[in-house]
Amino acid sequence: MRNLKISLQYDGTRYKGWQRQKENSPTIQEKIESVLSKMTGEEIQVIGCGRTDSGVHAENYVANFRTNSNMSIDEMLDYLYEYLPEDIVVKSMKDTTERFHARYNVKSKTYVYRIYNGRFRNVFNRKYTYHTNEKLNLDDMKRASEVLIGTHDFQSFTSLKSNSKSTVRTINYINITENDGMIEVEVNGNGFLWNMVRIIVGTLLEVGVGKINVKDVERILDEKKRAEAGPIAQAKGLCLKSVQY
Amino acid sequence: MRNLKISLQYDGTRYKGWQRQKENSPTIQEKIESVLSKMTGEEIQVIGCGRTDSGVHAENYVANFRTNSNMSIDEMLDYLYEYLPEDIVVKSMKDTTERFHARYNVKSKTYVYRIYNGRFRNVFNRKYTYHTNEKLNLDDMKRASEVLIGTHDFQSFTSLKSNSKSTVRTINYINITENDGMIEVEVNGNGFLWNMVRIIVGTLLEVGVGKINVKDVERILDEKKRAEAGPIAQAKGLCLKSVQY
Repeated sequence: MRNLKISLQYDGTRYKGWQRQKENSPTIQEKIESVLSKMTGEEIQVIGCGRTDSGVHAENYVANFRTNSNMSIDEMLDYLYEYLPEDIVVKSMKDTTERFHARYNVKSKTYVYRIYNGRFRNVFNRKYTYHTNEKLNLDDMKRASEVLIGTHDFQSFTSLKSNSKSTVRTINYINITENDGMIEVEVNGNGFLWNMVRIIVGTLLEVGVGKINVKDVERILDEKKRAEAGPIAQAKGLCLKSVQY
Repeated sequence: MRNLKISLQYDGTRYKGWQRQKENSPTIQEKIESVLSKMTGEEIQVIGCGRTDSGVHAENYVANFRTNSNMSIDEMLDYLYEYLPEDIVVKSMKDTTERFHARYNVKSKTYVYRIYNGRFRNVFNRKYTYHTNEKLNLDDMKRASEVLIGTHDFQSFTSLKSNSKSTVRTINYINITENDGMIEVEVNGNGFLWNMVRIIVGTLLEVGVGKINVKDVERILDEKKRAEAGPIAQAKGLCLKSVQY
């Protein structure tokens, strides 16, 4: 049986996130499984590298699936390109080892959160960026982001209700750059809790406008209480940039 | 009476172009006139810098309108931002001389046509670029574009039916650049005939794939017959970048 690793791009605007839902909600996983099943005549299950929330985008989402089909890679890519909706594109595919698992084998993931900081929204990026006209202090945001680098208990930065699983994660880097009003917050870590990147960004935005200061971020991390951190930044600004194996 | 010069940005996807139509079609001009009329209580007529076709975008479209309103510029900008749809943004406004006319006073205009050249479409720019997976010879396209620079009769490059008006125009430059599969064809000229930029790009694309050669472009220009040139490139790739006065 073949085990195929795929890399895909999607505009998450119309979808209820990656993961197939019980009710009949549109999800990326469901769209891809449906086309792959039609293509192979088998009931294909796609293993994704993780969940993405409703409205979140991906530039290079990685997944794998098993099949007995002997179609060539090019035939499969062309089939997917023809039958998937215009906001999902499988960009590459390759036969991989039997053991490869898109979720278990993740070493780290890189997310980028885009903030457009100008008086008015930019119509051309309005679906892929969060817009704010509040003046942001990037230096403070950068200093605050440094507090989060390393291995910490990120309980204050997740919407998880249960305490059963560990909320310790490692953030390898957070890069904040700005170019002509477009601010990108790039976060790389070994794993992320539910809503973690968006709550980190929501907190950094509060730092940026001066509502909380860098010292507060240390305290928020120490308190391990969700209520202490900033709000969840809008989903549309978030994009899974790459996955490292 | 005040004469106000405005600069605006729009995503033309949903619109039947700039110009107000007799039938009830959505156009940019109609949306702006409607909000300005509500704002001022007057019947505002907006003079645009030119028509843009159905589906064409603008980064810096310039227009002007006259009003007796004594609202401040900031109040007017905020009002427009609140009441215009999310795909139209008036970015700036200033009081200008009584004589300023957004169409008559144009010295030149700059359009950019975006072509994404890759095996598959890019989901994030799919509404603002034309996608082709055919291999394009950029050097040939650049050489062909040079044939069009200068003052010529562009009758082969317009959908105009009537011969009553002059079809002589001056193209100041055409810059073709490529970055990671994204090709931009930037065209600056003193004025453009109906569909002229899109027919130029459609012709350059035929050169790019080798269907016609550089010599053919000279002949097409000389023939002064629409049927000789390439097809009209898709509207969604075209964007009015700036207007010079």
